[in-house]
Amino acid sequence: MTTSLPQPMRDALNLACAALLVAPPNPRVGCVMTDCRENTLGQGHTQRTGGAHAEIVALRDAKARGNSVVGATAYVTLEPCSHHGRTGPCCDALIAAGIKKVVASIADPNPLVSGQGFERLRAAGVEVEVMPADDPLAIASRELNIGFFSRMIRKTPWVRLKMAASLDGKSALENGVSQWITSEAARTDGHAWRARACAVLTGIGTVLTDNPRLDVRLVDTPRQPHLVIVDSRLETPLDAALFTPGRVIYLYAAVQNEAKKAALETRGATVIYAPGLEPATRNKVDLAAMLRDLAAREINELHVEAGHKLNGSFIREGLVDEYLVYLAPMLIGLGSGMANFGPITQLEDAVNLRFHSIEPVGDDLRILARPPGRETF
Amino acid sequence: MTTSLPQPMRDALNLACAALLVAPPNPRVGCVMTDCRENTLGQGHTQRTGGAHAEIVALRDAKARGNSVVGATAYVTLEPCSHHGRTGPCCDALIAAGIKKVVASIADPNPLVSGQGFERLRAAGVEVEVMPADDPLAIASRELNIGFFSRMIRKTPWVRLKMAASLDGKSALENGVSQWITSEAARTDGHAWRARACAVLTGIGTVLTDNPRLDVRLVDTPRQPHLVIVDSRLETPLDAALFTPGRVIYLYAAVQNEAKKAALETRGATVIYAPGLEPATRNKVDLAAMLRDLAAREINELHVEAGHKLNGSFIREGLVDEYLVYLAPMLIGLGSGMANFGPITQLEDAVNLRFHSIEPVGDDLRILARPPGRETF
Repeated sequence: MTTSLPQPMRDALNLACAALLVAPPNPRVGCVMTDCRENTLGQGHTQRTGGAHAEIVALRDAKARGNSVVGATAYVTLEPCSHHGRTGPCCDALIAAGIKKVVASIADPNPLVSGQGFERLRAAGVEVEVMPADDPLAIASRELNIGFFSRMIRKTPWVRLKMAASLDGKSALENGVSQWITSEAARTDGHAWRARACAVLTGIGTVLTDNPRLDVRLVDTPRQPHLVIVDSRLETPLDAALFTPGRVIYLYAAVQNEAKKAALETRGATVIYAPGLEPATRNKVDLAAMLRDLAAREINELHVEAGHKLNGSFIREGLVDEYLVYLAPMLIGLGSGMANFGPITQLEDAVNLRFHSIEPVGDDLRILARPPGRETF
Repeated sequence: MTTSLPQPMRDALNLACAALLVAPPNPRVGCVMTDCRENTLGQGHTQRTGGAHAEIVALRDAKARGNSVVGATAYVTLEPCSHHGRTGPCCDALIAAGIKKVVASIADPNPLVSGQGFERLRAAGVEVEVMPADDPLAIASRELNIGFFSRMIRKTPWVRLKMAASLDGKSALENGVSQWITSEAARTDGHAWRARACAVLTGIGTVLTDNPRLDVRLVDTPRQPHLVIVDSRLETPLDAALFTPGRVIYLYAAVQNEAKKAALETRGATVIYAPGLEPATRNKVDLAAMLRDLAAREINELHVEAGHKLNGSFIREGLVDEYLVYLAPMLIGLGSGMANFGPITQLEDAVNLRFHSIEPVGDDLRILARPPGRETF
């Protein structure tokens, strides 16, 4: 057990953070290899899907620097993999390279393989240290991959609901005008949150009203998130702005319409029927089932940017893991709220949250809030 | 002109802050007297109304310590008074004591006397330094007395509107339930803001619905703020909880009712008719006229805690100088908003604000916001 906060692990975590946009749907992992005096021999982080894992990049980096890693210690922010996925197992590469010791922040969250990497290393005579789960670096490594952990453990994405409103909680005027309540700084920040997600989700109402692209434009990104539309009756227009070349688009519907499905698929979309199971919900998309399906499609973090009706549905069904709220220094008075649910009749039925972080973004305020203990799974 | 931030002036400002609750309706002023090596000889701050001003307290303190102030420098956070108010003029006392030099943060805001204190001191051979208006200590001295400055210069109180809501901007459930959205920590903090105000204002709607006392209970205070009720038709019940012994209560009405007025006055209230001047507003209290009247009654900071209708009226008429907003980590969904005004039809007509400070208070968030440049008068 490591109880201090070793500098190489801090460096490894910083490398993992640098993989924020490029790694998904793989976890963001960093690796630093050091000699006995903690001099760095090689380092790296997860590459694009199908590219090398952090450990392999670090081994290559050491080689490129002319450093031998025989007898070295590898600090890695996640348990090295022992299975053949898109790439070969990292454990084997570490063993073959002569690594003496592996220090890992956290175990692999996948219950089917968790601990197997450590076992394989130990069986080959490599010393293994795993940080305590409450170590700040272990917590940070997990938080950085909260969506990957959610998908592996809960079999559902980490759902982050983005809302923008005036200080008095209005996301649109009574006549529907909503552009632009928040500043360009907040919109740019919002694009950075889109960029880190595996997919952006919206509803058919937003598609029909705003005809948005919902891609990442205001920040640089090596990868565009997929797009998910909740479109119960397959009303997405074939000429909607969201159809951009090469984009992965999932349309979730409830009411079958094979002709429209075929037409949408020629536009590059994948149409999935996920109707509610009860007579009353048969014509609406079963959001929980949709989330399970999205996890099976390797969606870690799902960024929801929808109107107050779909927001309300997500909230009512308890499906939101994190709220990303931008508040503009402005009062609108009468207008549309942020999320349409309720009315509740007693305060105990309100959705209780905990403020997770509060940051000024330009002239606006960015608030992250979660239901208490939501990250504990 | 002083360009550094002298420690005795910092100390004087801290003393002024210590007079936050006791000084009103007088300004919060601190005074530190030092010898040529900046050793403190005596210090003090404004006492209760009718009690001594800061300079007099500092002179007495020096005497009590056995220190002579002949040839001393007096640091004071506001221009010493030259007129006979409730107490004798401080200038004469400083001159008589042999003070050699006076350093003041800011000039008196009262246009009728501003600069006269400095002139009187200079005429008596006392050296006078006034800090630049953009000096942080000068700004802080003014901010600490923003209500006094407002009353002196604008002839209207500084209106601080307190609102408490869920993160999604709801101050009550659809069925009217509103207790307690924010935590006890936020309510205690709210009482501290009541305590610093000269008066707390609410509307007849809140009186009839909640029967509140609207006094300061959750924090210690040497002085209860006055109470102001906007009660157009004099509907305040004679047995309302707000009638407490010795309390100064102003009831502003629009529709004359001499019998009810007489009955309310037996309960200790002062009834003032302030109807609108137009036929359409004749049955409602003219809020701007009421504010002018309150300034004439020595109200510096007016703390408004009302329902969303009266909040909306204050906002619609542009009468709010500062918003004190508590947001609870909670979503309510459908319910009552914070302020009922509009609907506006274009975003340019929204009330623009600037976030002034953002602080966690217990589990809640406290936001201070002002219309940009509102404090510039």
